[in-house]
Amino acid sequence: MGSTAKSNILVVGFGGIGTITAYNLEAGGLATVTGVLRSNYDRVNEHGFKIWSCDHGNIPSWKPSIISRNVPDVQAESLPPYDYVVVCTKNLPDIPPTVEEIIRPAITPGYTVIVLVQNGLNIEKPMFAAFPSNIVISGISRMSSAELKPGQIFHQDHDILIIGAFRNPNLKLETELKAAKHFTELYNASGKATGQYAEDVLFMRWRKLVYNASYNSLCAITGMDTSKLRLSGTAVHELLLPVMLEVKSIARAAGVQLAPDQEDASLNGDAIDAYFRPSMQQDIEKGNFMEMEIIVGECVREAQRLGVPAPTLSFIYSLLKVLQFKTKVKRNMVTLPPMKDYGAGDILAMLKDTASQT
Amino acid sequence: MGSTAKSNILVVGFGGIGTITAYNLEAGGLATVTGVLRSNYDRVNEHGFKIWSCDHGNIPSWKPSIISRNVPDVQAESLPPYDYVVVCTKNLPDIPPTVEEIIRPAITPGYTVIVLVQNGLNIEKPMFAAFPSNIVISGISRMSSAELKPGQIFHQDHDILIIGAFRNPNLKLETELKAAKHFTELYNASGKATGQYAEDVLFMRWRKLVYNASYNSLCAITGMDTSKLRLSGTAVHELLLPVMLEVKSIARAAGVQLAPDQEDASLNGDAIDAYFRPSMQQDIEKGNFMEMEIIVGECVREAQRLGVPAPTLSFIYSLLKVLQFKTKVKRNMVTLPPMKDYGAGDILAMLKDTASQT
Repeated sequence: MGSTAKSNILVVGFGGIGTITAYNLEAGGLATVTGVLRSNYDRVNEHGFKIWSCDHGNIPSWKPSIISRNVPDVQAESLPPYDYVVVCTKNLPDIPPTVEEIIRPAITPGYTVIVLVQNGLNIEKPMFAAFPSNIVISGISRMSSAELKPGQIFHQDHDILIIGAFRNPNLKLETELKAAKHFTELYNASGKATGQYAEDVLFMRWRKLVYNASYNSLCAITGMDTSKLRLSGTAVHELLLPVMLEVKSIARAAGVQLAPDQEDASLNGDAIDAYFRPSMQQDIEKGNFMEMEIIVGECVREAQRLGVPAPTLSFIYSLLKVLQFKTKVKRNMVTLPPMKDYGAGDILAMLKDTASQT
Repeated sequence: MGSTAKSNILVVGFGGIGTITAYNLEAGGLATVTGVLRSNYDRVNEHGFKIWSCDHGNIPSWKPSIISRNVPDVQAESLPPYDYVVVCTKNLPDIPPTVEEIIRPAITPGYTVIVLVQNGLNIEKPMFAAFPSNIVISGISRMSSAELKPGQIFHQDHDILIIGAFRNPNLKLETELKAAKHFTELYNASGKATGQYAEDVLFMRWRKLVYNASYNSLCAITGMDTSKLRLSGTAVHELLLPVMLEVKSIARAAGVQLAPDQEDASLNGDAIDAYFRPSMQQDIEKGNFMEMEIIVGECVREAQRLGVPAPTLSFIYSLLKVLQFKTKVKRNMVTLPPMKDYGAGDILAMLKDTASQT
């Protein structure tokens, strides 16, 4: 096949971001997408995705070229290798299975380029360890998109994907950059979304962390959206800014110099009348696990490694660990001692909703 | 009347603690209680309180001698003065009306003794300012009791009320101590509850704060009861103990030396199988305001005044301020800018439950 052959792409994870990412790749005409759907497979198989997108318009029913319940096993199923595996799942190293375990069957060593459209820090490290001969690309998605109901996508803000290669010292820089540039071209082919090639991957990741470590965490902990948090009055100076400045100083120690006014840009990035509920807030409300390890945990570990004080961020991390545990309790993933009944008999049934006071 | 005349007592606030406190005072036979009921007046007026108490047993229907919807106005209604006004409401200086505004009509200057059965620090100061000629007594209730439904009380742990006079430099110490001792006698008269006379009021209040500033706050913020918080693994060393040690060092700077192992006692005070939900946790779950100012705010302000570092407690205070604001939002007590609709039309209705992702 010549240079006009379509790229063979697997997209894993079809929530708000994954669906628009996959749609845009096929809309460009340069890619054939196989989609791995999990919770929404049945609904999408029957009806397709219903999409409202600020970039692509109203789409009553759409499916990627191929859909699958599982990550295809390229070798066992004798499939042609994937040029790209685009990962749009959550990144939850603390909740098995890990991303690398999930995608392993679809990766052809030395060939498949892995694109991580995911938040957070140090997410390339387990990838490098699991797939030492594969190029890994960073994708930072800046669209706002959510799956409001199974298979129903509301895409609110223009899709910008910031694309760059993670530097793997075992591979040739040149081929890494070429792969990132090629993927950027695929992403821009539709003319509707913006693929933004950016060589300085770490800079881009730390920049996004300023928002995510602060707003995303604090919205999750307080159950307040970004607007209400700002409108509360005290949160900006007592919570959001201290975290933002801590992230900025950790980044600096890690060799990444963010803009002098980064905290203002991050603080005011969302419109005050948007009432955005960041991903971790949505997750905890839905009873899902949060990406707190790669967004906050890695940040705290970098601070420790580099000897940078990060008291506010560390405290937030401790709270998020409790909230992640709470989700495990809700999902019956931990065994707790039974509750003492105090010999109170029938009245104890009322305790289901309320309890003792101290 | 001779010394055998019953004390004329007004009890304000009939939740879990207030009801058992009032019941015990009348059970002792030395007091006539007028009860000020608010949300549960109609239910109690018709059916009385239904009480299950570990001290007093099963009581199918009970009312204080007199019940009232409002705090009686002694002067306007030409009532005999109250010997004691026992305040069992929440103490919310940030949410009007204040406690002193609430009880003012029932206070006879220079005569009525005010008993504050309430948590927290510095609660006597606005009382001294409002009623400079009245004795103010501290009551720290250690029972666990909750109103599970209107007028239905579940009292779980033996009622211990630690009683002592707040020191008002304008009054005679001797008469303050006498009043506190007399109230202790009234409280012990039933033989069922324990009135514990304790001269060192500040010590007692700081000791309780070790528990309340840590467990009560963190249970409210995380929505986890005391047992689950402990069982989460990391919360003890990363959250609870740091707060407890901060409170201990603020107390020391304030001249109060708590026990060397106070943090262990406070940490392990509740049985691991009790799954206690402290008051602020219950409040936030019910959409009520929390006593965060007198439990945490005053503690932080004492730290600032005394120059004691309290980073964890300060951070908790900042989070609690956001959560108190959240309750104001829920109760429509603040006006927020309307949400932008993004021209997305019908799909916006779905945003009521979910929203954008970042």
